[in-house]
Formats: sequence, C-alpha cells, structure tokens
Amino acid sequence: MKLNERGLLVVLSGPSGVGKGTVRKSLFSQKNHNYTFSVSMTTREKRPGEIEGKDYYFVSKDYFEKKIKEGGFLEYTYFCGNYYGTPLDKVEEALDSGKELILEIEVNGCRQVKEKMIDAVTIFIVPPSKEALYERLKKRGTESDYQIQERIAKANSEFPLAYQYDYIVVNDSIENAADRIRAIIRAEHAKTSRSIYKYYEMLGDTETHGQE
Amino acid sequence: MKLNERGLLVVLSGPSGVGKGTVRKSLFSQKNHNYTFSVSMTTREKRPGEIEGKDYYFVSKDYFEKKIKEGGFLEYTYFCGNYYGTPLDKVEEALDSGKELILEIEVNGCRQVKEKMIDAVTIFIVPPSKEALYERLKKRGTESDYQIQERIAKANSEFPLAYQYDYIVVNDSIENAADRIRAIIRAEHAKTSRSIYKYYEMLGDTETHGQE
Repeated sequence: MKLNERGLLVVLSGPSGVGKGTVRKSLFSQKNHNYTFSVSMTTREKRPGEIEGKDYYFVSKDYFEKKIKEGGFLEYTYFCGNYYGTPLDKVEEALDSGKELILEIEVNGCRQVKEKMIDAVTIFIVPPSKEALYERLKKRGTESDYQIQERIAKANSEFPLAYQYDYIVVNDSIENAADRIRAIIRAEHAKTSRSIYKYYEMLGDTETHGQE
Repeated sequence: MKLNERGLLVVLSGPSGVGKGTVRKSLFSQKNHNYTFSVSMTTREKRPGEIEGKDYYFVSKDYFEKKIKEGGFLEYTYFCGNYYGTPLDKVEEALDSGKELILEIEVNGCRQVKEKMIDAVTIFIVPPSKEALYERLKKRGTESDYQIQERIAKANSEFPLAYQYDYIVVNDSIENAADRIRAIIRAEHAKTSRSIYKYYEMLGDTETHGQE
C-alpha cells in the first residue's frame, strides 16, 4: 500500500561511459515493473522507419520555440542545428497515471529539471573507481585513441557534479545498481513530504494538522 | 558497495498498538542482517535473572543524573520513579562499527533524538486505517474495555504526529512493512549528503569540490 500514489520522476545521469543506459534497460526488463519513459520532441527530420509519437514527436522549429517560450519543456537542448526536449505535459500525464517516469539525462541537465520539478528524484550513477570507467571506455574498441581520450576528459569534467544530485549509486554490477534504484524509488514513496497528505486524508482529518 | 560505510541510526515509532515491536522483530529475524540494538540504561533495581549489559545497564540515580547533565543520552524518560535512557556513547560505537542501529521509541521522543542526531532516519509506522488499529487493540483480548478505550485514545493523540518523522510506513503486513524499511535503509545509504565525501575521496579529489 502506497500512501503516495502519484508516480515519481526519476532522473538517471552519470559521467560519460558509466553505463546508465544499461542500468535503465535492466530496470525496464524486470517483470511487472511500473516504469515508463518519455518520448522526446525534436525539430530534426524524421528518418525512414521512425514513428511519430514512438521514436520522437517531430515538430517544426517555430512550434518548438513557441513551446520553449511557454515553459513547455522539462528540459531541452540544441544540438547540431536541432532542438531536442522533454515535453512537460507528457511528463505530468505519466506521473498522474501512477507510473514512475525514468528519464536519462546529460549530467548538466539536472538543474534544469529540478527548476521545473522540485520533487524529481535525481540519481547520479558512478563507477566503483575512475580507473574502472577508463577501462570500460578503452574496452569498447570501436573508438580511436583520440576519441577515447576525449571521452575520458569529458567523464573527468562530469565526475565532480555528483553534488547536484539527490543520490549517488555505484554501478559495481548492473543488477546491484538497478536494485539500489528500486530501493530508492520505494523509499521515496514513503517519504513523509510525499505521503502525509494522503495519510491525513486516511485519518479523515486533512485540515486540522499543519506541518512544521 | 556502499559509499557510506557508517551505520545508520534508524528510529521506529508509531501510534500505540500499530505493531512496531513485531516489525522490528521481523527485521532482526532476516538472515545476514546487519542490524543491532542498543541496551538501555536504567536506575530501577535489577530483577532476578536480568543480566547487566544485556537487559539493561543498571546504574545509580546520581550517576544517571550526572550523565543527563553531560548530555550523555540520546533520549531518556522518567517513568514510575525511575530513569530509562539510551546512552549516546553506545550508539556512536555501534554506528562506527558499520551496523544499523534500530531503535524503537515512543512517538513523542522523535524530537529529542533529532536534536542529538540530526542524521537519524526516523520512521513512523501506521496502520492501513484507524479502524484496523482499533480492531487490533480489541482482539488482543487481554485488556478490559476501559483499558482498550484508553489505548484507543492514546493512539488517536499519536496519529497526527507523523509529520515529525522522515518516512511513513504502512503496516499492511509485517513483511511488507519490514521490506519498506529495508528499502529506506538502502536508499539512505545512497543519499548524496551521506556519501559524497567518500565519493570525492574515491576520485582522489577531496579538497577541490565544495557543495552548494
């Protein structure tokens, strides 16, 4: 029984190469999970095979910029001549339906999200050591030495930003990291700040007791 | 891998009759748990069969009052002519050893604990409904109607104090409630405020990055 029935916005981030995508996939591969994701909106052209509303919402630049002005994005970026963003109304819809919305973002997008949604749960995934992450980047084998050095430099600049997040989760194994995230989601639902209203409602007593 | 290796002080409380003792026992009955409890100190006389340092630490009234003046208790009460308290040094010892210290307290003891230990994790256990708790009190069958009415009145006065706690855990079943508490403990260890120091230490970089 959850006193807080609204879904949580759970933001996953972490330094380049830490494996946040793999951890996210592990969450979604669990049986009977209650997670959902958000389809991004973009101004880039639809590629063959891509489906509107599944891969992206494809819109014009004018439409996107109008939406930015209206504060309609949880977060957005401009990249290689195109906009990419998470529409706020879709996020609210998902949360109201009681699903946990799992969002993977770039390290420096955390503040943007917290400004729009103060009750987002932000999680910074980290490697067990710097070296573990370097090794991982090297082992991919698909990139040149130069590219690897660039990725390492990027990770190094991202490591220190952990302090902007609510939780730090060590990715020592994918299953452990996913387990920790599940525990965080469960605990967050039990937080007094999220559940006290429902609790007082259950007591039939919503008006007489203030919070400190 | 835990970035925060110190144990947590976990305070369990809840309205009279909610079953906090049973939930605590369920936590301690789990295999390979990492919980410990604190032996209280008292000025009351040792009863036959009671063991010093196991049932209680038995001390004189003078000693207890001296310790109060020195701020040596996490919390204490005076009840039927005797003092009962949780010695702070024993609490610190347990936490430093890396164990989670599970403490069951009276509803109104929460503030006293938070004053001494700001990073205590406080959990308020509640019934699925007021009626569920009333039924439980009636079913015990060991008390007179008058005693039951007294217990109900006590519970009613305690229900509203949930707001003083960090978490509200519904005791819909003992196993569910214990699971939620385990998730809370796991999540709390991952909190950035508890783990960032160790994380920066892991980066070999403890001095250059402040927190906001």
